[in-house]
Amino acid sequence: MDTPYLLVDIAVAVAQYRRIAAAFPGTPVYYAVKANPEHALLIELVRAGCHFDVASRTEIDLALAAGADPSTLSFGNTIKKADDIAYAYAKGVRTFAFDSLGELEKLAEHAPGAAVICRVLASSKGARWPLSRKFGCAPEMAVDLIRWAAAHGLDPAGVCFHVGSQQLDPGRWEPSIADAAAIFARLAADGITLRLLNCGGGFPVDYQTVVAPIEEYASAIATAVTKHFPVRPDLMIEPGRYIAAPAGVLHTEVVLVSRKSYADEPRWVYLDVGRFGGLAETEDEAIEYRLTTPHDGAITAPVVLAGPTCDSVDILYQNAHYELPLALRPGDIVQIHGTGAYTATYASVGFNGFPPLRTVLMASGGDAVR
Amino acid sequence: MDTPYLLVDIAVAVAQYRRIAAAFPGTPVYYAVKANPEHALLIELVRAGCHFDVASRTEIDLALAAGADPSTLSFGNTIKKADDIAYAYAKGVRTFAFDSLGELEKLAEHAPGAAVICRVLASSKGARWPLSRKFGCAPEMAVDLIRWAAAHGLDPAGVCFHVGSQQLDPGRWEPSIADAAAIFARLAADGITLRLLNCGGGFPVDYQTVVAPIEEYASAIATAVTKHFPVRPDLMIEPGRYIAAPAGVLHTEVVLVSRKSYADEPRWVYLDVGRFGGLAETEDEAIEYRLTTPHDGAITAPVVLAGPTCDSVDILYQNAHYELPLALRPGDIVQIHGTGAYTATYASVGFNGFPPLRTVLMASGGDAVR
Repeated sequence: MDTPYLLVDIAVAVAQYRRIAAAFPGTPVYYAVKANPEHALLIELVRAGCHFDVASRTEIDLALAAGADPSTLSFGNTIKKADDIAYAYAKGVRTFAFDSLGELEKLAEHAPGAAVICRVLASSKGARWPLSRKFGCAPEMAVDLIRWAAAHGLDPAGVCFHVGSQQLDPGRWEPSIADAAAIFARLAADGITLRLLNCGGGFPVDYQTVVAPIEEYASAIATAVTKHFPVRPDLMIEPGRYIAAPAGVLHTEVVLVSRKSYADEPRWVYLDVGRFGGLAETEDEAIEYRLTTPHDGAITAPVVLAGPTCDSVDILYQNAHYELPLALRPGDIVQIHGTGAYTATYASVGFNGFPPLRTVLMASGGDAVR
Repeated sequence: MDTPYLLVDIAVAVAQYRRIAAAFPGTPVYYAVKANPEHALLIELVRAGCHFDVASRTEIDLALAAGADPSTLSFGNTIKKADDIAYAYAKGVRTFAFDSLGELEKLAEHAPGAAVICRVLASSKGARWPLSRKFGCAPEMAVDLIRWAAAHGLDPAGVCFHVGSQQLDPGRWEPSIADAAAIFARLAADGITLRLLNCGGGFPVDYQTVVAPIEEYASAIATAVTKHFPVRPDLMIEPGRYIAAPAGVLHTEVVLVSRKSYADEPRWVYLDVGRFGGLAETEDEAIEYRLTTPHDGAITAPVVLAGPTCDSVDILYQNAHYELPLALRPGDIVQIHGTGAYTATYASVGFNGFPPLRTVLMASGGDAVR
């Protein structure tokens, strides 16, 4: 089969869903569709009882086309066009995130009565793919915005936050849970009863480094909720990477192995996929994928790994100390593991003329079916 | 018209081609198709006499479909699959770049007799979008590789280099021209006569900052060639950005204007296009585009500019001190100028469910035609 392609085993994703759902009993799991919106994957997640966090009009359509009930969708993007809010509302979506007055004004007009969740700024220290201040507002502003929502015909449901993707520290959720509890308490004093705490995503998966089991993160969150909330709120979580990443293996071919000079330097290994072909999360070498080759076990030496385009930023790993077998040759297949999330949809539409990354589904017996 | 879209005026690109061709008399201009592979643009460039630098099989097809003669194509990517070399050769392409023995071996087998150009490492200091060591080999290795090419049935045509895209310093070409002259001289002593010096691209355009006219770059290059070469070689250049960038204006809509807290902070302005929708060159705020709004002339204040996706790295400018009018509101159209190059094809295929950037061509009278 022509490389590059992403081989996806949907059964793995469903097993990940079941495991995280079991770790958070009584908590609906909203799969972040952006991680991997593959139709067949969404169908199986619907069947398994999963809910969906959607970021755009297209993702709403994808979830509904897979059979999801609109009541199981949360429009989690805090940056929405008025038209897209109206579209979601017309389709039956009734849960929306916001973090600003501008967004609330649009929601009050185009999604009257909808449940709205205020996103609060959180620290993403410890995350491999951190979230900046792009999303969320300060807690004191959240209180005022929720009051505004209650006064303008919206249903002030609760608070959400996100600690950053591939967050390794199980203790990182607690400060935001404490912030949320304080917001609940202040609004209760006003007679506004919030009920929902959305703990977001960020749950990590194994790449080169093996991470703590999901149950540790669930336990830390449960403990923090009990500690800070006098009455346990309804919870929801929004994993994307945790469900989809382990389900994918990217198959790529070595195009060239070269040296730049006669000095003692690492070899350069060029693959037929790079940062613009689906491996966008190697920006700043943030995500260090695990690689396997046909020569594993043979002698290795340091390499710089790069993609096939004429763009110099299309380098995967230059500082992360990757080593690959000296026997590696053009035409060899390199497997990049844990690539089921944030790859296929990140791929450019045709940069340098290279087509976007194809997804191939694995049949239940382990064979690729298309 | 629904935003975002890239409005392209092909007449501007053709005028840019004519100006750079006039600045480099007697020098064929190879347009870097990767900058903007729009079919109608390539057709007009073919008519104007332009040659083409192609990076992949698809770009070869695009250039040929626009009517280019295969003898006017140079396969400039130094990272090519053997199959793609064979494909190019079968289509009549006879000029190829290389920078390693591995690539030469493929070329000797799949493109016998072809003219090959050795890419030499160059400093891209001074470039806004610099090139790393990803491309090129050290000069002493270049000499050996060219000898190898001559001994294995290839036509050793010459040397190429690239000083980095949006290179502002006209003096940056000279060190590489001197390196090339030394390689020519060493090989002449072996009886190998090189004839071609490819000075690459990198020629800058106006973004927020107005750059020196192209004639200054041409003059610096001509002076350096005269100084270092006893006999003037044939020249070629490979502009992409210079031809395409000024031809495009990206039209985007303000989705949201917000503040994160009550502290005195810049407003956040969210547009319906971002780093994953075509503005990839705002990575690390490398390219600072010029913006216009319907409120220009009104009072401005600092902003952080971000795209519409749920990804935190989808921030355009946070440190570049952009200011926009205080009157800016959701629904306002912001025009991003100089976006004809390295935008539409960089866009992701569907990250967060947002479709890739559309291109709309401007008719000769100034109206958009599709």
